[in-house]
Amino acid sequence: MPSGSDTPVWRAPVRYVECDQQGVVFNAHYLTWADEASMAWYADVVGLAATDHAAMVEALMVKTSTLEWFSGARWGETVEVHVDALSLGRSSLVLRFTITAEGRPCCVVETTYVWTADGRSAPWPEHLRAAVGAHLEP
Amino acid sequence: MPSGSDTPVWRAPVRYVECDQQGVVFNAHYLTWADEASMAWYADVVGLAATDHAAMVEALMVKTSTLEWFSGARWGETVEVHVDALSLGRSSLVLRFTITAEGRPCCVVETTYVWTADGRSAPWPEHLRAAVGAHLEP
Amino acid sequence: MPSGSDTPVWRAPVRYVECDQQGVVFNAHYLTWADEASMAWYADVVGLAATDHAAMVEALMVKTSTLEWFSGARWGETVEVHVDALSLGRSSLVLRFTITAEGRPCCVVETTYVWTADGRSAPWPEHLRAAVGAHLEP
Amino acid sequence: MPSGSDTPVWRAPVRYVECDQQGVVFNAHYLTWADEASMAWYADVVGLAATDHAAMVEALMVKTSTLEWFSGARWGETVEVHVDALSLGRSSLVLRFTITAEGRPCCVVETTYVWTADGRSAPWPEHLRAAVGAHLEP
Repeated sequence: MPSGSDTPVWRAPVRYVECDQQGVVFNAHYLTWADEASMAWYADVVGLAATDHAAMVEALMVKTSTLEWFSGARWGETVEVHVDALSLGRSSLVLRFTITAEGRPCCVVETTYVWTADGRSAPWPEHLRAAVGAHLEP
Repeated sequence: MPSGSDTPVWRAPVRYVECDQQGVVFNAHYLTWADEASMAWYADVVGLAATDHAAMVEALMVKTSTLEWFSGARWGETVEVHVDALSLGRSSLVLRFTITAEGRPCCVVETTYVWTADGRSAPWPEHLRAAVGAHLEP
Repeated sequence: MPSGSDTPVWRAPVRYVECDQQGVVFNAHYLTWADEASMAWYADVVGLAATDHAAMVEALMVKTSTLEWFSGARWGETVEVHVDALSLGRSSLVLRFTITAEGRPCCVVETTYVWTADGRSAPWPEHLRAAVGAHLEP
Repeated sequence: MPSGSDTPVWRAPVRYVECDQQGVVFNAHYLTWADEASMAWYADVVGLAATDHAAMVEALMVKTSTLEWFSGARWGETVEVHVDALSLGRSSLVLRFTITAEGRPCCVVETTYVWTADGRSAPWPEHLRAAVGAHLEP
């Protein structure tokens, strides 16, 4: 499991509704947490203004996600998500979400986003590409 | 628990994700099922055309809901929802959703909807009011 | 809309997944928030120890809920929930959840819980009844 | 996008609650649908008895999932899921879920499950391994 960046960009107590009858968080909710963490990363790390943020939510489509689980988060625990920007292409962006519960590795999500216009992939607007690019992993 | 009308308008197997760690469906999901049943009732019982249906989804706001539980639905069971239209006012509509699992009473939901225009209550369009009114409980 | 107690016991940013295609939070999620707020109230206001908390989650059943909506919470807003204990009976408890978004009234939920043993209503354990009773609205 | 087997093992109308404010199904729900389809596949294609099914739900852990999206399902559409068993190891199983909406490709999910005992990977019980193996893709 990758170490992730130093500071979690998103954290939340596990919700009772998120746990299934085996007492662990149902797998789909990890994608929800990654989505929330991506929003927090754009706002708090990249520092996008509200209008740019809204434009990204509108234009950025999720193309692929891969998830690998290491343990199940449980009710009573707080989950944290670290975000690392792995690559930035003409229209694509790959983010990695490292999800822990009370520090215990739970799941790593890697998601590829594509900038779109009129439903087709399109190049990033230059100022947004520059803003995101400044936060790529070295 | 009221008997409900004869034919369920909506049915679905309980989903694994809907059950909490006590092995019963989490309470909020009964509102989701009632919502789906309301859509099915407008389409299949009232017989609204797609454009009227879309207009209703846009204009009808949920004002109040009351829920009473009798038992918990469980994974492996199929839930059914019967819908009864209890009253129809100038702008309001009250629907009752009787939810059973394998025939066992689980929950009764009563919801008051209000027709709105520009965010304020407004009278029903006459043709929709007539269509819905034809299916009121006697 | 009631004023609620002074301090919210639970707060969370609205999640993107919680908003429907009308751009407001889907109605069922208010019950989820009320549930989370009830847990926080037991832990932080009543001050239940973990074992007592777990016993309550196991034994307390939701019998009825009534919801009234005043406006819809939206993505980008933070919701807060105030909790007031309205009444406490031999086996029952009524909690009121006052939900706001950025201070704007959104929804009031009143839920009646019943203590159960072997699936039937039963009197509260005395020490839990006393602990909860100390926080009843005057 | 792979063609999938001939008959969908699971289908459901898109729920209103599943659509986000862009009018398409939120990405996490595709994992929920794949999960429901896996259950249906074990029951209806493999033909597991209820006790074997329950044992599998208890022992089979999701290790990895990869998702690729082609278009977004929308409210008003019915989604169908085809399931193909791609490989079966000593303790692992790979299922592919091909998800369409009104016949339009939406998402392909590939999930690797691991049989576990006491929280560690363990060999499949022989009779279950044989039952599942009989339905592997050639």
